[in-house]
Order: sequence, then C-alpha cells, then structure tokens
Amino acid sequence: MKKLKIGIIGVGRLGYEHACNIANRVPECELVAISDANIARAKEVGEELGVSAVYENPKDLCEDPNVEAVAIITNTASHVDMIKLAMDAGKHVFCEKPLAETVEKCLKAEEIIKAHPDLIFMLGFMRRFDHSYQIAKKKMENGDIGDVILVRCYSQDPISIIKGTLEYAPRSGGQFIDMSIHDFDLIRWLTGSEPKKLWAIGGCYEFKQYKDWDDGDNVSGLMQMENDAMAFFFAGRAAAHGSAVETEIVGTRGTLRISAVPTDSLLEVMSSHGVCRECYQDFISRWHQAYITEMEYFCNCVQNGIKPYPDVHDGTQATKIAFRCKESFLKNELLTLE
Amino acid sequence: MKKLKIGIIGVGRLGYEHACNIANRVPECELVAISDANIARAKEVGEELGVSAVYENPKDLCEDPNVEAVAIITNTASHVDMIKLAMDAGKHVFCEKPLAETVEKCLKAEEIIKAHPDLIFMLGFMRRFDHSYQIAKKKMENGDIGDVILVRCYSQDPISIIKGTLEYAPRSGGQFIDMSIHDFDLIRWLTGSEPKKLWAIGGCYEFKQYKDWDDGDNVSGLMQMENDAMAFFFAGRAAAHGSAVETEIVGTRGTLRISAVPTDSLLEVMSSHGVCRECYQDFISRWHQAYITEMEYFCNCVQNGIKPYPDVHDGTQATKIAFRCKESFLKNELLTLE
Amino acid sequence: MKKLKIGIIGVGRLGYEHACNIANRVPECELVAISDANIARAKEVGEELGVSAVYENPKDLCEDPNVEAVAIITNTASHVDMIKLAMDAGKHVFCEKPLAETVEKCLKAEEIIKAHPDLIFMLGFMRRFDHSYQIAKKKMENGDIGDVILVRCYSQDPISIIKGTLEYAPRSGGQFIDMSIHDFDLIRWLTGSEPKKLWAIGGCYEFKQYKDWDDGDNVSGLMQMENDAMAFFFAGRAAAHGSAVETEIVGTRGTLRISAVPTDSLLEVMSSHGVCRECYQDFISRWHQAYITEMEYFCNCVQNGIKPYPDVHDGTQATKIAFRCKESFLKNELLTLE
Amino acid sequence: MKKLKIGIIGVGRLGYEHACNIANRVPECELVAISDANIARAKEVGEELGVSAVYENPKDLCEDPNVEAVAIITNTASHVDMIKLAMDAGKHVFCEKPLAETVEKCLKAEEIIKAHPDLIFMLGFMRRFDHSYQIAKKKMENGDIGDVILVRCYSQDPISIIKGTLEYAPRSGGQFIDMSIHDFDLIRWLTGSEPKKLWAIGGCYEFKQYKDWDDGDNVSGLMQMENDAMAFFFAGRAAAHGSAVETEIVGTRGTLRISAVPTDSLLEVMSSHGVCRECYQDFISRWHQAYITEMEYFCNCVQNGIKPYPDVHDGTQATKIAFRCKESFLKNELLTLE
Repeated sequence: MKKLKIGIIGVGRLGYEHACNIANRVPECELVAISDANIARAKEVGEELGVSAVYENPKDLCEDPNVEAVAIITNTASHVDMIKLAMDAGKHVFCEKPLAETVEKCLKAEEIIKAHPDLIFMLGFMRRFDHSYQIAKKKMENGDIGDVILVRCYSQDPISIIKGTLEYAPRSGGQFIDMSIHDFDLIRWLTGSEPKKLWAIGGCYEFKQYKDWDDGDNVSGLMQMENDAMAFFFAGRAAAHGSAVETEIVGTRGTLRISAVPTDSLLEVMSSHGVCRECYQDFISRWHQAYITEMEYFCNCVQNGIKPYPDVHDGTQATKIAFRCKESFLKNELLTLE
Repeated sequence: MKKLKIGIIGVGRLGYEHACNIANRVPECELVAISDANIARAKEVGEELGVSAVYENPKDLCEDPNVEAVAIITNTASHVDMIKLAMDAGKHVFCEKPLAETVEKCLKAEEIIKAHPDLIFMLGFMRRFDHSYQIAKKKMENGDIGDVILVRCYSQDPISIIKGTLEYAPRSGGQFIDMSIHDFDLIRWLTGSEPKKLWAIGGCYEFKQYKDWDDGDNVSGLMQMENDAMAFFFAGRAAAHGSAVETEIVGTRGTLRISAVPTDSLLEVMSSHGVCRECYQDFISRWHQAYITEMEYFCNCVQNGIKPYPDVHDGTQATKIAFRCKESFLKNELLTLE
Repeated sequence: MKKLKIGIIGVGRLGYEHACNIANRVPECELVAISDANIARAKEVGEELGVSAVYENPKDLCEDPNVEAVAIITNTASHVDMIKLAMDAGKHVFCEKPLAETVEKCLKAEEIIKAHPDLIFMLGFMRRFDHSYQIAKKKMENGDIGDVILVRCYSQDPISIIKGTLEYAPRSGGQFIDMSIHDFDLIRWLTGSEPKKLWAIGGCYEFKQYKDWDDGDNVSGLMQMENDAMAFFFAGRAAAHGSAVETEIVGTRGTLRISAVPTDSLLEVMSSHGVCRECYQDFISRWHQAYITEMEYFCNCVQNGIKPYPDVHDGTQATKIAFRCKESFLKNELLTLE
Repeated sequence: MKKLKIGIIGVGRLGYEHACNIANRVPECELVAISDANIARAKEVGEELGVSAVYENPKDLCEDPNVEAVAIITNTASHVDMIKLAMDAGKHVFCEKPLAETVEKCLKAEEIIKAHPDLIFMLGFMRRFDHSYQIAKKKMENGDIGDVILVRCYSQDPISIIKGTLEYAPRSGGQFIDMSIHDFDLIRWLTGSEPKKLWAIGGCYEFKQYKDWDDGDNVSGLMQMENDAMAFFFAGRAAAHGSAVETEIVGTRGTLRISAVPTDSLLEVMSSHGVCRECYQDFISRWHQAYITEMEYFCNCVQNGIKPYPDVHDGTQATKIAFRCKESFLKNELLTLE
C-alpha cells in the first residue's frame, strides 16, 4: 500500500506530536509538508523530520500537489477556514478537536464538508482510539454489560502543570469547550444518544481567576439522554495525582471502568506512603498511542474510501452540548439541548 | 465501666445482627431484653443469646426497669412511635435509619427528643462508622485534601440477591428514601453543608416493575451545596459484581476514594478472567464492623454524657433531601431543598 | 450453648489481645481467670475485663475448678511447662505459637498431649484463620487452582516499629523461629506436604547487630516438598510500607495471592505520590479478626469434641523446619529436613 | 541525523516484529535489506515493508554495501555464525537473545566482537528497555529503595497459547535457557552482581512431556549473589491469567514491583467474577514498546559511538547461569556459578 502523503498545518506542542507520528510512527503515511504561522518553527521541525516543503501560508501547503491529505492542528478559531482551504484544494482532512469555537462555525464546517462528498473528513477526538476505550467499546458491542445505565466521565489536569494551565486558560475556551468536550463526545459515543436535558454547576474552588473568564476551575454536570441513559461529567484543573481522565460505563449486566489509576507504568512503589502507583503528568504521554492509532485509522479510511468517525456532525453535537452546559452553568438552570 | 443494659425492639434480619453485636461483640454493653411483633422469633433469639426478658409488646420492654437504653430496629413507619415509647419511659435511644417515612414524622421525632434533653438519641447511619470512612474523615479534618470540591456516592445492591430485593421493593420506601438516604447523610457529613439545588433522574433499565412504585431501578442526581461543593449520587439495584458502595471526595489538594473494589478479602484470584477481586454480596457483611463500632460509640456517649452524631436533625435533613430528590425525579425538574 | 470458661496465662501485648477477645468478642466463651508473672498487670487487666480470679502462679489458675480451658500466651520457653500444668489439671489448652524453642521440647509436648487423649489441644497459628486465607483454602479444596506448584511467603515487619523490633530481637528466637515459622506452617498447610530439601540464605543488609545473634535482618529460603511442590519464603524486619505478610499459591489451573497490598482499609489516597493504599503498621491489627476466629474455632472444638488443627504435631514440624533453615543459613548448605 | 540503514536476518514471528519496527516505528533507522532461509517469506515481508533487497543467503545481506547494521533474529544455534558474518563484513550488530546455545559459543562470540573493536554490538534483552523497568532502574539509581536485598522474578507463558508452547518446547532450549535467561539478565542488572551459589528445582506438574526434554513445565531457583543480594526466579508454561512477567526488587528503603497485573489496558471489568483486570496473552504485545525502545537505543549507540548494554558479556553470563541452573535442577544439588 502506498503511503498517504500528509501535510500538517500547525506544529505547536500537539502539532509537533502529530508531525512526529505522521513522519515516523504511522506506517501508513508520510509527512511531506509543514506550515506554521511561526515559519522558523516550521523550518526547525521540517529539518528534524526531513521535510523540505515548508510554508508560512497554509494555502500554499494546501495547494502543494504532493500533498494528498491535510492535518489541521492550529488554534480552534482557524479550524473552519483551514478545512475550507484544504478541501477546496481537493485534500482529505484530519482536524484536531474542537471543531470550532461556535456552533455556527461548526454548521459552516458541515456545509463545506457536504460540498466535497468525495473527500474524507475526520475529527480528532483521540480518546475513542485509546486501547482501553477500544476494548471497552468492543465489550459493549458484544453485549457484555447489557444496556447502558450511566456514563461517568472525569477529566482532570494535574497540579504539576498548573502554571501552564493558568496561562493557557484565558484563550482555551474554558472547561466546557476545551476540556469537557472530550467527555461530551465520549458520552454520545458510549450511550449512542443525545442529551435531552442537562444541568451544569461548579465554581472557583482554588483559582479565583477563572471567575474572570466566566468559568470555574472545577465543574460538573448531569445529563439525561434521549434514550434515558444518565451521564455525569466532572472536569478539574488541578488534580494532585496527575492527568486523570477516567470513564466508567455502568450497564445492566456489568460495569467497565477505564483508567481509575491513570498510569502507563506497571510499577508499584512500596514506600512510607503505602503501596503507590505514580500517574501521568501530561496529556500527550497519556494519549500518545491514541494519537498514532487515530492517524492510522484516518489513513486507512482515506486509502480504502471508508467514512471515518468521529465526523463533522460529532464535532457539532459536542460543541452544542458544551455551549449548553456553559449556559446552564452561568444561569444555574436546567436546560434542554436545543 | 458498667455495661450499658440494652433492650432491642425488632430482631428481623438487621435487628438480629444488632442483637448479636450488643450481646456478644460490643464490650461496652449487654443485651437484657428483646421485643418483636413475632414473639416466636423474639423467644428464639432470646434463647440463643441468653436473654430471658422477651416481650411481644414494645411498651413492656420500654418499661422494663432493667433496660437502660433501647435499640429500635423495626420497620420505618413505626420508628417515631417507638422513640416516643422509649423516651417517655426514660430510656436512651439508638434508632436505625431512616428516621421516618415522612418529613412530618421526622419533625415530630425532633420534638419528642427535644422534650427529653437528658436522654441520649442516636440515629444509625452506620457508614460514618466504617473504618475506611473514619480514616477518610480524619484526613479531611487534617487538611490533607484541602477544600471539598465534589463528593461522589454510589450505592448498588448486587444482582445475586435480586429476588429478595424485588420482594422488598414495594415496601422499601424506594431508591431515594431507602438506599440513597445513606448517601445523602454522607454528602452532608463530608461537605459540611446542605443542598441548595438538586436534580434527580433515572429509570427502569431492566426491572420495569419499579415504574409501578413510582421508582426507578437505577437513579442518580446532582446537587449544588450551600457552600458550592458539588455532589453526585447514583443508586442501583442489580450490580453484577456485588454490594457496591463507593464514595469519593475530590478536594483542592487531593482525592480520597473509598471502596472502589468492595471486598473484605485481601485475595486476588488469577484465572482465565484475569486478575480478579471478589466482592461483598450483602450489606450486612459489608458493614458488620461499622454496626459494632456505632454501637460502641452509642454506649460511650450514654456512659459519658456525650451528644452523639448522627442525631435526629441529621435524620430529618436526609429525609428532606430524599423526598426532594424523589419529587425532582418524578417531575424531572430542578428543585431547591426547601 | 454454655460459654466455655477460659483462664489465660500471660497478658502481655498479645496476651491482652486474646484476653479482650475471650472476654468480649468471642460469643462462645468467657474469661474467668487471669495469671501473669507481673501480678499488677494481671490485676489491672482483670479489673478492666471484670475478672476477679487473678493469680500470680499459673498453677493456681490451672487448678481453679471454674476454669475449663487454658489459653497460654507466655514466653515461648515456658510453653511446654504451662501445657503440662494445664493438662495435668484436666484443662483443655490453647497455646500461642511457636510451640517451643527447641525440637526436643516440642516432642515432649507431644508426649504430654498424647497422655491426655480426652483433652483438646490447639496451637495458635492464627494466619490459617484469617478470612482471606480461609477463602483461599476453600478455593483450593474446591479444585479452583488445580495442583499446587509453588507457594510463596513474605513476612515483613514495618520500619515504623523498628525500635521495638530491635529491642525484642535478641530474645525473639530469630527470623526463622520467630517470624518465618508462620510461613513454614502455611507452606505445610497449603502444599499438604513436608519439605524434602531446603536452602536458606540472607544477611544483615542494614542492621548489622543481627550478626551478633547468628541471624540476618532479611532472610529467604527455597524448599522442595515431598510432593514436589516448591516453596519460597522471605522474611524481613524493616519494610518501608508496613506490616507485610503476603502469600501466593501458584497452581496448575490458577493462582491465588493474599495481601499483596496489606491493608484493612478500602481507602485509596490520590496525592502527589500517585494513587496510594496505606498499609498495616502492626501485626495485631493485621490479625485481629483471625485471633477472634481461631478462638471461636477452639471453643467450638472443645464444645463439640472435635480435634482441632493446627495441632501439636504441626508445631513440631514447623519448629523442625525453622531449625533446619537456620542451620542451612549458618552453614550455607543444602539440607534435607531430617 | 541520517537514518541508520539496517538489514535484518530472520523474519519469523519475532523477526517480523523487529522488521516492522525498524521500517516503520523507529525514527532513527530504516530497513534496507531482508534475509531469511525461507526466501518466499523474506520476499513477502519485503513487499509489505517496501524493501527490495531480499536475500536467501545471509552472507549476501551482510555484504550489501547499503547495509550499515545487521539485526540477527534467527534461531539461537546460528547466532554466533551470523555475528561473525556481519562483523567480518564490517557491520554493526544487534542480536536477539539468547546469545548462543552453549557457553563455549558465547565465548567465541566474545572473541569475534573483541576482534572488531570499532563495531557496535548489542544483545537484545528487551526487558531492560520496558518503560516500567526503566523507571524502576532510575528509582534504584536515585537511591529511592536503598540497597537491594531481594530480586524476585516470575516468567510465565499463558495457558491460552499452550499448543504453540508445547510444539516449540523440544527445540526451545528449555525453561532455563529459553525463558528464565531473561530473568538471569534482570537479576544481574538489578543486583549489579553475579551469582555465588544457586539451587534450582521444579518438575512436570501438568505436562509430563517436559520430562523427555530433561526439563520441567514449572521451575524455580534461589541464588545468593556475590554482594549477598538474594534472587528468586520462577518460570512456568501455563499461567491461567496470561503472559505474566513480574519482577520485584526489595530494598532496604522500599520495594518496587513491576507488572503484578500484566496488562496494557487501563480497563477494569466489574462482572460476576468480581472486579477484574484482563491480561496480556502473548509476549510480543507485552514487550512491543520495549522492542522499539531497544532499537532506538541501538541506533543511538551506533550513531554516537556509545558502547551499548546488554553486551556480549551479559549474554555469556546469563547463559552460564542458565546452564548451571539446569545442572542444579538435574542433579538437585547446590552449585557455585563456576
């Protein structure tokens, strides 16, 4: 199978992870072009990864005839413009989450994609591609836990990186749109349903500055899904133990719990603190393999003409939920999704 | 220290557990009298435990001059009457949860107890006395986890006893008043606050008969406390793995999780199912030591004139929350506590 | 059932635990007499537990006609003499481990007991009565793990009590006879076989003073049993995390592991150390319930005329193994048991 | 950095894993040539991985001027010949474990390598490169657990692949040389010492055919190291739960335990079996990332002129230990290493 030729737009922290994966860790593709607003950074990464086609202007990358597919890892506000650039140039698109920073823009993205039915579009909710989540989903499809009663989702950043977290906070989009949106996607994926009613709460338990951004440092919410499944989510910015993403699916026949102890090591440490497991301290380590697996899947879809999931609609729905949760949080009211 | 002489009213399943503890496992007291509507059962237990004072009428037990304190383990509907009988006869009272089946009756209990300020009254929310919860509470008081952000409570009966669960269901009071009331007490105890707003949902995911009792086989709810702490509870009737009561306290400095694997054995079984921990299959085994510890504490309070907690007001508040949750569940509305 | 009237000889640290259990926590018996070389201590405990028959001389306790059975919790060197006193006075005997400090004395104990075939004798290897070990044994008897391949035993005291450990060390009998003897009993019990060959090693890894007592602060050994099962034991005096007794049985069909995380709490602590379980810091907490269960079993055997296990022969065999291990350790030679 | 051009000899099961890693998952190298006695297989892999230089004769691969380094993944008996071929052709060598099937051949390998001091040689004991082992080693070097007292090593194949295990057994070299040799390397690496004395035992607990190969289906052994550290190893062919490689290092200040639950998933399954973790069922999944990491390290050593570990001497020593253990097992005698 010929390797898919991918150009990447955006090689910041997460973009760099994707660039390395595309270049070196995903057999199905190769990295052929790089674009970044910071052209020096683009050149540096290009040199490291052996990519000579380096562009300041993403349009140039999209129009590079050697590029077959474009990976968009830019700031959220530019996603939809980039999707348009790439698709209008006839390129398949992999776009990082979240799809856009407003529901209106999400709908615009849907139109663009609809206008290019021959091109593949995939949204990067990478959690779905994590090994543990994939096993869980297979067990669910296999009927191992019966029908879904409750999905519980925790997403916590570690206190160890709080400095960066606080710096990034004002332009992050906030807890609901930046962080919990992953869980909104998981809730939809795992329940197979949409929220009917939701109520979100929270506050500034330690970092009062979140108030200035109409946000909380810790928030949570309860949802009633169309199919009556229940969903609870919690998001925090400063977990003592690590980068803690935990998901639980309670079913009528059994329960699956993913990552109650968030670690990639099989090491137990016996010390004066007891028997301890040390945890992930950053999300890129946590999801490293999931980023690879989602890219393999994207290549596979392009190469075999398969429609990938999560798709643009998944992006729109998760964004809708995020905005309604934020509204519920701000008004302290029970809301319907629409 | 002289042993406290306790008479017990009600020696059904849980009453028998208490009777055995009082007679044989709590050094601070002795069992001196037994009353049960089923007099044959009372006699049988009396014979087994060497107690000759056996009464059909609880009034007779309360008036037995040898009895110093009365343990009430009857059906919920009779609790307040029993409290009155015992206190009017000048006896200290230990009463099983829930305090009563209506808030009105709870308030009546408050009056009775207020009228006997010299007598000790304690309500049996035994979870507070479980070893793990006591360690957790001490760590919280010690400031180990900072301020409380979220309390999460699960209470699940095991599928292995579903037959009994379903038989008992119609007269149990329902998920909120019978089961989740424990968690309402824990939430109040662990947050040190009262609910400001709450929303409860759920449904009949497997056992449709719960519908007939205006109940669900699985329910959950989210609460915003007066102090802005968040609380989530979930209650189910048929967990595949066992009698699963799990409580988690997320704080600004750390998190405490109690009983993610609900077992009293330190055994791991390596089999074709993987590495497994087998779980409790009934609540009496789960809380056996907590029932003993709460009775030791009750005796200690009587003997030393200490006001015990949980008290009657804790019973009223938990009942109030239970009824508001049920109302929220039935109306599918966001409610305030009052 | 009439309560068995027990007199206790020795109310030091562990003797006090037994005295409290007999008096207050084992329904099948009552404490009717106390003897201790330290008569003031005996009186103090008697007062606390409501026992008026207090003796300086154990012979007097044995001859007290109100005493039906004697619990011997004295120093090891006096065990056999106490057994003789008690049995010659016609009393059933529960004796703490180890049976004696020499194999010769063990054999003498066997003779004494043989001479009183109508009296019950039980040796207190309490680990067999721990809930987790009892479940494990039942699973083995049920065939769940097939045939035994390997038994692995760890016994470690915690560093938190090292001061007391070092003070007690010179008169403890040493690692093999004081500590590992528990594991020798478990190995015999779990494999159903006797050692054919053994090799023990070790050293003074931190506390050089053990050298003066012909001992090591950490030792281990490998045994080949008559039935070809393998057994490995390890004993240490200063585990960082706690009082760590771990036992594993590897079978042809499965494996059972007991107490890899030695704790009586169901609490997980999420902190900067990761996800931690805090551990037992003393053996009396660890085995509290086992001490109760073994006493219940002893009473039951007396009351129903059942021959109890572990018996005197179990004591002799474990002592034999301990001495051969010590010899192997001192000579650094592979030895047979006999 | 220019990618290291590697030719691989042997693309059987494990060879194929290495070939894929070199070609697609290790950024520091590329796969430029393939040789296999089964030329059809070599061609097939070459086609899949885009490698056109395919040879039946390994000598041709070694002499291919485009090849800078050779990875040897052939049967053990041919390792030393292949090393000679490659080094005489001026190529750096990565060689799978075990180094050779006799100590004499190991020593011959040492000579060959000594004769090419300018070439890099590395032996593939991949366990050292596993993430958990690397963290453990770093903690040890950091002094976190003080001095090493005991290393305990388990290596068990799962029952789920027993058919293949038994087919491979006659030509595997046996438990000590094929399986436990990994643990012998770990013991040397973790204690920093060589065995002084050792005793190995075992038997045919289920699969009597191992007797025909002078082997056991389960074996274990105890070692006393030159520095007085103790080491225990256990190897089995049919663990019920999975591919179970567990290593524990007990130190004077703490203990490290790796892979007590051997799984790459963060999933807990709550079912009628309790709370379960499912385990690895094959060694290639277990060590997938370690195989990649060791190859990255090898490339790094070649590119920067660093002498890699494990080296040829590590191979010789582990083989020596394996043979002495086998001798001890067959004679049932305590042996010194030399």
